Amino acid sequence: MYQINETIVALATPPGEGAIGIIRLSGSNAITIADSIFAGKKLSQQATHTLHFGKIKDGERIIDEVVASIYRAPKSYTGEDVVELSCHGSQYVLEQVLNLCLKNGAHPAKAGEFTQRAFLNGKLDLAQAEAVADLIASRSGAAHKAAIHNLRGGFSHNLKEMREELIKFSALIELELDFSQEDVEFADRTQFYELINRLHLMADRLVQSFALGNVIKNGVSIAIVGRPNAGKSTLLNALLNEERAIVSDIAGTTRDTIEETLNINGILFRLTDTAGIREHTADLIENMGIQRSRDMMKRADVVVYLFDINTTSPEEIETQRTLFTGEGIKHLLVGNKTDKGNKEEAVKLFGTDVLYISAKEQTDTDALKQRLYHLVVGGEVQTEETIITNARHLASLQEMLKSLQDIKAGMDLNIPADLIALDIRRCLYYLGEITGEVTTEDKLDYIFSKFCIGK
Amino acid sequence: MYQINETIVALATPPGEGAIGIIRLSGSNAITIADSIFAGKKLSQQATHTLHFGKIKDGERIIDEVVASIYRAPKSYTGEDVVELSCHGSQYVLEQVLNLCLKNGAHPAKAGEFTQRAFLNGKLDLAQAEAVADLIASRSGAAHKAAIHNLRGGFSHNLKEMREELIKFSALIELELDFSQEDVEFADRTQFYELINRLHLMADRLVQSFALGNVIKNGVSIAIVGRPNAGKSTLLNALLNEERAIVSDIAGTTRDTIEETLNINGILFRLTDTAGIREHTADLIENMGIQRSRDMMKRADVVVYLFDINTTSPEEIETQRTLFTGEGIKHLLVGNKTDKGNKEEAVKLFGTDVLYISAKEQTDTDALKQRLYHLVVGGEVQTEETIITNARHLASLQEMLKSLQDIKAGMDLNIPADLIALDIRRCLYYLGEITGEVTTEDKLDYIFSKFCIGK
Repeated sequence: MYQINETIVALATPPGEGAIGIIRLSGSNAITIADSIFAGKKLSQQATHTLHFGKIKDGERIIDEVVASIYRAPKSYTGEDVVELSCHGSQYVLEQVLNLCLKNGAHPAKAGEFTQRAFLNGKLDLAQAEAVADLIASRSGAAHKAAIHNLRGGFSHNLKEMREELIKFSALIELELDFSQEDVEFADRTQFYELINRLHLMADRLVQSFALGNVIKNGVSIAIVGRPNAGKSTLLNALLNEERAIVSDIAGTTRDTIEETLNINGILFRLTDTAGIREHTADLIENMGIQRSRDMMKRADVVVYLFDINTTSPEEIETQRTLFTGEGIKHLLVGNKTDKGNKEEAVKLFGTDVLYISAKEQTDTDALKQRLYHLVVGGEVQTEETIITNARHLASLQEMLKSLQDIKAGMDLNIPADLIALDIRRCLYYLGEITGEVTTEDKLDYIFSKFCIGK
Repeated sequence: MYQINETIVALATPPGEGAIGIIRLSGSNAITIADSIFAGKKLSQQATHTLHFGKIKDGERIIDEVVASIYRAPKSYTGEDVVELSCHGSQYVLEQVLNLCLKNGAHPAKAGEFTQRAFLNGKLDLAQAEAVADLIASRSGAAHKAAIHNLRGGFSHNLKEMREELIKFSALIELELDFSQEDVEFADRTQFYELINRLHLMADRLVQSFALGNVIKNGVSIAIVGRPNAGKSTLLNALLNEERAIVSDIAGTTRDTIEETLNINGILFRLTDTAGIREHTADLIENMGIQRSRDMMKRADVVVYLFDINTTSPEEIETQRTLFTGEGIKHLLVGNKTDKGNKEEAVKLFGTDVLYISAKEQTDTDALKQRLYHLVVGGEVQTEETIITNARHLASLQEMLKSLQDIKAGMDLNIPADLIALDIRRCLYYLGEITGEVTTEDKLDYIFSKFCIGK
């Protein structure tokens, strides 16, 4: 059973050393618990939205000098009393402060529990709450824009409009049922049909947007394959090098992760298993069984087939082209080493669908990026429009689409109003599921368990 | 030239994903710059120590929803106006906010620059400022205690007392110089001699404490060596396992680092190059040249020589014992696999200085920890007393000791007061160097460059 009465505590900043680390308490006892370990002004006597310097003490032992932030309910992130202790960013200190809070009656927060409370206290709807997690995880401009749009309620706004109109008609139709003997129509069927059509269009557009939304949120996986000495490592470095300079602006950026991703026009391209690409796939085509190499390429969103224009036979490329097309694999054929050979000659040999580059000289590597982008995204991303990025929302919208089709079919067949009312309720149910107006406890726990601890 | 007029900005929380990330601004334009990117209440009109919810905007584009903390000079960490922007902990968002601050006139903070300003503005003395870095880096109870003691001015307090007494006498002696023709003694030589003796004792104790201080701050490196199948991996796992359960309480603790350290009675023992221990040193004695294995063992603070009591000859142990003693290597001989053999028999064969354990059954592995601790620390750590942990302080104290000896020698030889006055000034110089009362700009820059960015 969900205990919203408990006061919860967690580390709210990333683990590791830093100037500042924050321990966050939320719940009816947050201020009392903070007072029991804080030596300074009495926090329970302080106003909301104020900052107080003091010491964290375990009995006589001083753990740290901190600043306590007070937020009184309902003017806080969770809607409850919240205290944030801004400590020195030492893992040891933070662990001690956390343990001290637990010893004084706080409970360790589950993943996403702060945001879950914000939802339960009506500070955010469910789609907005989910946008918080997306915002934190955002690593590209497009993902960030979509998350901010949803956090600010852009998506919820669309849905609420739809829901209200539908509820209005639903009420009228249910009213008809009460007067069913009298054969009256309170709900204007033409207007209603128009509304259903509009909803259908909107839901359909949102469902369609998921393909792009998924790309925005999760990025695109690319496999670069080719024979040894085709120049894969050189290409990888050429693609990644510029990136690194931009991203390493921020101190301590993890190199390992950065080196494997590429930001093209705000979309994240993941060079999946880069280590693998660097070391193993050199001999991929050679050493792997045909089936295994096919499986590996199918897992990627796009396969870049790189070859040396000076040593490759046109037959090999033709074979690959047929293979990719036959298997339905999104691909890009890239002829490398134009610096060592004749590009015009190559075009005659391998065709015009091949992109010709020199990875070494970085000639046309930018064109390669743009080709990858257009292969995945199509045109420009219209982020002013709502794009859904959440698989849970997709499932609800798909169910909603089905019920809208049933309503339309029912109206076409002129079926009784009570059956149509049933379909409308079904449609409203799925709409409400997205924003959390309809939900179950299990579902909530599942949704919030995917958050990080401390949020 | 140091520009304290510039407003600086940096990420103050560790890099990586988390619920919260903080961007910190300090300087005379901190609040103006924050106002130029913050949509909400006008921050320049808000009182110190208050919190304000709002949006960070780049023109019309919303970057994030944040809480701004206002600290007005001199009531802030740096003594200047400070604004902390508590953002969603996404690397992308934090990078955007940081860049926006830079675009609006802030300068990127150098490592330690916030604390350096706190020092320059008289909020902390130099020894306290250095304790901030130590506190953040502290990973064990003893290191934390020493850092907190120094941050709270414990060390500075000792030094200031010494300095004041010395200045008093120095003034009297300098006064004598003005009246040198009259052969008067304003400074009581007996009292002065006593003071110098007391200072000498105190400085000597502090210098002596560095050996332990270094252990407390940097930990102890241990090499576990022995023939293959002596049970090194098993011992390593036995030693590390309990640790892990404790440390992983805190979410996201980096496993890689934790697995290589061991906390015994609050002191950190580093199993240096654990990967090496796990994989390579199995054949260390076998494959490495004698010289190389000696070098490797000399680099460790303590060598644990592990052997199987059931398959090892007493001669091998005797050879090792002689080798370690001869080379002056702190070591512990550990006979393993008492579960498979007879411990009493082994004691007769290998001697009573050997510790007998079963790594597999975890028998006496705790005794091993305590032996390691006593080998390094000696007795219990008296952290109520000041322990110096900083090599810079050691160097200054050593110079100070020299000048104190010179003063004593001078007084014994009854040399003229003006020469003694010179030695006193030298002593005061080194004392002041520790707390920062005497310093040069270059030295300051060097000291603070070892801090992390954002502090």
